[in-house]
Amino acid sequence: METRPLDVLNRGRDKRIVIILKNEKEITGKLQAFDIHLNMWLSDAEVSDSEVTKKYGKLLVRGDNIVCASPE
Amino acid sequence: METRPLDVLNRGRDKRIVIILKNEKEITGKLQAFDIHLNMWLSDAEVSDSEVTKKYGKLLVRGDNIVCASPE
Amino acid sequence: METRPLDVLNRGRDKRIVIILKNEKEITGKLQAFDIHLNMWLSDAEVSDSEVTKKYGKLLVRGDNIVCASPE
Amino acid sequence: METRPLDVLNRGRDKRIVIILKNEKEITGKLQAFDIHLNMWLSDAEVSDSEVTKKYGKLLVRGDNIVCASPE
Amino acid sequence: METRPLDVLNRGRDKRIVIILKNEKEITGKLQAFDIHLNMWLSDAEVSDSEVTKKYGKLLVRGDNIVCASPE
Amino acid sequence: METRPLDVLNRGRDKRIVIILKNEKEITGKLQAFDIHLNMWLSDAEVSDSEVTKKYGKLLVRGDNIVCASPE
Amino acid sequence: METRPLDVLNRGRDKRIVIILKNEKEITGKLQAFDIHLNMWLSDAEVSDSEVTKKYGKLLVRGDNIVCASPE
Repeated sequence: METRPLDVLNRGRDKRIVIILKNEKEITGKLQAFDIHLNMWLSDAEVSDSEVTKKYGKLLVRGDNIVCASPE
Repeated sequence: METRPLDVLNRGRDKRIVIILKNEKEITGKLQAFDIHLNMWLSDAEVSDSEVTKKYGKLLVRGDNIVCASPE
Repeated sequence: METRPLDVLNRGRDKRIVIILKNEKEITGKLQAFDIHLNMWLSDAEVSDSEVTKKYGKLLVRGDNIVCASPE
Repeated sequence: METRPLDVLNRGRDKRIVIILKNEKEITGKLQAFDIHLNMWLSDAEVSDSEVTKKYGKLLVRGDNIVCASPE
Repeated sequence: METRPLDVLNRGRDKRIVIILKNEKEITGKLQAFDIHLNMWLSDAEVSDSEVTKKYGKLLVRGDNIVCASPE
Repeated sequence: METRPLDVLNRGRDKRIVIILKNEKEITGKLQAFDIHLNMWLSDAEVSDSEVTKKYGKLLVRGDNIVCASPE
Repeated sequence: METRPLDVLNRGRDKRIVIILKNEKEITGKLQAFDIHLNMWLSDAEVSDSEVTKKYGKLLVRGDNIVCASPE
């Protein structure tokens, strides 16, 4: 069992992660880095809502927008 | 009687927990870890709204989205 | 007269409390523990909106959702 | 003239106070205690919206919900 | 030129001030005291929306509701 | 290149600045002072929405309402 | 792999960046400076919603409005 919840993100580095945002959008990408605020740096990222998906080579997500995140 | 409200989550580790979010969604899963912000790490998690349920093997929930949580 | 507003919750321990939330829901339960953020741990809790009431044996309420609370 | 705005609440202790909340509700009651976050403890309190008024013998109001407050 | 933006409120003490709130209401009154959070204590205050104006002899405004304020 | 983003406001002192607010309103005025929270003191200010423009000789804007600001 | 998520913005200085805001607007510009709150200073900036694009020679974006940002 993990001691701290963010520890598990450590094992998700360099793997795909799915992020659900407060504004209902969903982001997927390869986790490059994160900090205690849940700011995350993704490579090969996609931002999707119910209608459109946009691609970004590098994407910084501000942690306070995140509802939950699921590493691979 | 507990001294601090979060103490009770300690006894909920490795058991199912139900979480109600500010965005009206409900999350259930097996509690692996949490911190004082109520960030929680769940395994075998489900995120449900009134229409859809999605499953995630590992799910990190950002604590500031939580209204209340009920451990088993 | 109380010196600090939260002091009164001390006298409400182990008694029923009514909590009104920012999302218009109402929670009642037996107050087991609280902290300075108004995080509260309730036993025998009910969460109600205008349509439905759900029961939880143990419920942790995150304090930042609370508008006001009335101990018995 | 007061040096600090909250000083005036000191003179309102044990008197009626009217509180306007961010959710448009209005609370009146007798001010028993308050702190620097504007958490307030009222006795003989009433919570009103445009349709209903509910009475509470003891009511703790979380300060971050308050727009403004007028002591007697 | 002022060094700090709040310095100008010092010269507005004991004079009328107009406050625009995040909830679209407007408050006017005579500025008695303020602090660094922009909590303000007004005398002879009026709270107005597009339909109604209410008068309060003494009014404490919680600073986090304020969009902007214009002293006389 | 600037070292810190707020440094550029220093060069905007005593000049016109355009401010876009979270509530969709727009404020223009002559920048007299600001602090690290982006609280700003303007002279000869105008607050506009899609329908109305109001003028204020002196205006204090609380920084947490600001989306972005463009100095002359 | 980066150690901290904001490190990648360092390599984006003096290059174009795309910023998605919580209010659904999109900002593009040349990144001149940023800080740990994600306050950003852009030159040659454009603020767009679904209907209009406005241009600003210099634009300071308050970090708490940002959902995510993608440097070139």
